[in-house]
Amino acid sequence: LNQDLHGLFDQTIVMLNMRRLDELKDLLSSVPPADVAELLEELEADQRAAVMQLLSDEVAADTIAEMEPEDQVSILESLGSQRAGDILDEMSADDVADMVGELTPEERGALLNLLEPEGATDVRELLEYPPDTAGGLMTTEVVALREGLTAQEAIDELRRQAPEVETAYYVYVVNDRDQLAGVLSLRELIIAAPDALVRDIMRRKVISMRADEDQEQVARNVKKYNLLAMPVVDHDNVLLGIVTVDDVIDVLEEEATEDLYRAAGVSEEEGADRESGTWQSVRARLPWLMGLLFLSLVSGKVIEHFNGLLTTVSALAVFITTMAGGAGNAATQSLAVVVRGLATGDIERQHIMPVVWRELRVGAIIGAICGVALAVTATLWHGQPAIGLIAGTAIFINLTLAKVAGTLVPVMLQSLGLDPAVASGPFIATVTDTTSMLIYFGIASLVVSYLG
Amino acid sequence: LNQDLHGLFDQTIVMLNMRRLDELKDLLSSVPPADVAELLEELEADQRAAVMQLLSDEVAADTIAEMEPEDQVSILESLGSQRAGDILDEMSADDVADMVGELTPEERGALLNLLEPEGATDVRELLEYPPDTAGGLMTTEVVALREGLTAQEAIDELRRQAPEVETAYYVYVVNDRDQLAGVLSLRELIIAAPDALVRDIMRRKVISMRADEDQEQVARNVKKYNLLAMPVVDHDNVLLGIVTVDDVIDVLEEEATEDLYRAAGVSEEEGADRESGTWQSVRARLPWLMGLLFLSLVSGKVIEHFNGLLTTVSALAVFITTMAGGAGNAATQSLAVVVRGLATGDIERQHIMPVVWRELRVGAIIGAICGVALAVTATLWHGQPAIGLIAGTAIFINLTLAKVAGTLVPVMLQSLGLDPAVASGPFIATVTDTTSMLIYFGIASLVVSYLG
Repeated sequence: LNQDLHGLFDQTIVMLNMRRLDELKDLLSSVPPADVAELLEELEADQRAAVMQLLSDEVAADTIAEMEPEDQVSILESLGSQRAGDILDEMSADDVADMVGELTPEERGALLNLLEPEGATDVRELLEYPPDTAGGLMTTEVVALREGLTAQEAIDELRRQAPEVETAYYVYVVNDRDQLAGVLSLRELIIAAPDALVRDIMRRKVISMRADEDQEQVARNVKKYNLLAMPVVDHDNVLLGIVTVDDVIDVLEEEATEDLYRAAGVSEEEGADRESGTWQSVRARLPWLMGLLFLSLVSGKVIEHFNGLLTTVSALAVFITTMAGGAGNAATQSLAVVVRGLATGDIERQHIMPVVWRELRVGAIIGAICGVALAVTATLWHGQPAIGLIAGTAIFINLTLAKVAGTLVPVMLQSLGLDPAVASGPFIATVTDTTSMLIYFGIASLVVSYLG
Repeated sequence: LNQDLHGLFDQTIVMLNMRRLDELKDLLSSVPPADVAELLEELEADQRAAVMQLLSDEVAADTIAEMEPEDQVSILESLGSQRAGDILDEMSADDVADMVGELTPEERGALLNLLEPEGATDVRELLEYPPDTAGGLMTTEVVALREGLTAQEAIDELRRQAPEVETAYYVYVVNDRDQLAGVLSLRELIIAAPDALVRDIMRRKVISMRADEDQEQVARNVKKYNLLAMPVVDHDNVLLGIVTVDDVIDVLEEEATEDLYRAAGVSEEEGADRESGTWQSVRARLPWLMGLLFLSLVSGKVIEHFNGLLTTVSALAVFITTMAGGAGNAATQSLAVVVRGLATGDIERQHIMPVVWRELRVGAIIGAICGVALAVTATLWHGQPAIGLIAGTAIFINLTLAKVAGTLVPVMLQSLGLDPAVASGPFIATVTDTTSMLIYFGIASLVVSYLG
């Protein structure tokens, strides 16, 4: 498909240059909006303007809905207010709300003034909901029917309502007070006897969520119950809108990116976007790095404490990075398995002890194997069995404890009501730097004093 | 909802103990299958058997489809072959294929013998496709209509076909040779004039994928084009089945878990499941840890080279973990941003230079700030401005280079045709251990020889 896009780009350039605009118009009308959006991003400003003139308002609206907020605003601004208004009217209210949500109040007002008053009101209502809630994610374009209709009347009603509603996969049924009473899939409606009452064929147990619930919870439930859309209601069970599965996929992806960033000690404000600014990245990363830098001085303090020993047995310095690195790596592995397990629900906090025991066993086995390997290597390298004994024993204890620490730290954070994902790899690695230095030099002291 | 599940569990136990089985049957028929599945996992074996007897074959099939493969097999085995066969007949072929895919050939044969011959053939056909391809992910339950029908005839045809097909959100249109010719959403079919020809109202440009294409590519395209299902065709464009959006969500989540595991140096075979065995975990993690242990000896070699200097200026040892840790942490941050950006397509390999420059700028700014902070701290701590100068300068260069390394390593891996995610945090941290020791002791040598 990337190749298709390359071909589309070339064809577009040729047709623009040869002014074969009718042909280009036909070509673009047969291409999915997501591809037209990618094409526009690759074109020069004047080419982009020429292409936008060829798109119908509806296709232009679908195309703009696929773009990033910055690109959306800049392309609309380039069109002039008449055309921009026509396109905005074709966009769904939730897409417009997402787009204007990040603008300053003045810019937002200017854009919303281009919309028909009714549409602007819908957008303003959506903007009332925090963006990371069910309300902030929903679209208000929803097909709702009264429960007294027959299946045939419902289909006739759909013919009236649905041409505008692209997200009609389910039909929601409401009572006189607009409260959610049931749901039917279009399939169920079609296969029902025409004179069956909607109230008799609808499913009455509808999974729904309140507008103020967290978007990640919405996404988890859509995934769990294999839904195409989640109805959103207010405190009185009045149907407000639906969250569609395509928005849920975006939320799950966003969440996965956040987890990966936190695991690496990057705060979630930073985009992976190549245009993300230098200072934005500095702000997202400096606090972590600076904090960890000072935390690492604790392990430096441990080394300072054993400086006399280090001066006597200078070969000990050689394994400092191996000890610290090994512990950090072992802890990072356990951390990833436990944090992801807690996030997906595969590990439950109440059942954590079996996980801790498993990590202890895994750490001891890996530690024993690595300990023997390192002991042999160190002995051969330095010709001193004592160095081999110290390094081997220390890495065994280090790896075992690091695995337990990597397991317990995220669990403890969750018990304290914190997100377990804040225990990043860099954080746990810096913490285990200190324990590994204590263990390494502690064992070295013992061995050296015993050997006299 | 978790609370709901708790209530459901308690109610089930009470009703089982009081033998109020009809009531329990009614209760369970109103609960989504995903919740019944969770309930069954919490029950004792005899309670589970009692509940299974109350479920209709259809509800039992939907419930089992929500469980993990091990649980599915064990629950079917407990039912006796008559009931197990009835339930299997109600399950969709792709769910059965996923379940039996991990069994030994004998176990698989035994299970498939319980199915009606026709269903068993469907399952065997699906098992021909590798599980991580479009074919391995698809269901063959798809509504396909001929292009010559009218909208009304199509609806009548749906009434015949669709009761069996829960995944009918789109209607696919095929020609005489069963080749995919067009698509209609149920909404479009309902709102069309009853005598309009399907051929005239269908969309002819259908996004489809071949059965041998990678499941992640299917998932990326379903996400990009906001589809509810992706049609799967063979090399001749003959319609074979569809991949539904709920399976796509599972693929995306699996992929996110893999990325997070790789970032932490855990191979993807390890499940986050608490029952995952000790030896399975050892196998998934030992190769990484052992490899990195030996790689870390390179930085040990660098320290050994400077052992004379370290003995003369013993305060230098204090900052070894700070240097190594700081570089590793900085590189891990860049790595996470770049690997995720490459995975989601936000960063393209051809446009990598702006990203490298940004990381260089970010690294230099963060390095300068941390450098000054560390220089002041080290000077105050040891009372020697030379130590402060060495530590501050070294951390500045270290962090700057680490950011560039964290950016370039995944890009280079991708250029070599490797998955950029194999450059895990632990790997890059171990590599930067060596560079940080070279820089630190190199600067220390210069400063010490200059101060004479």
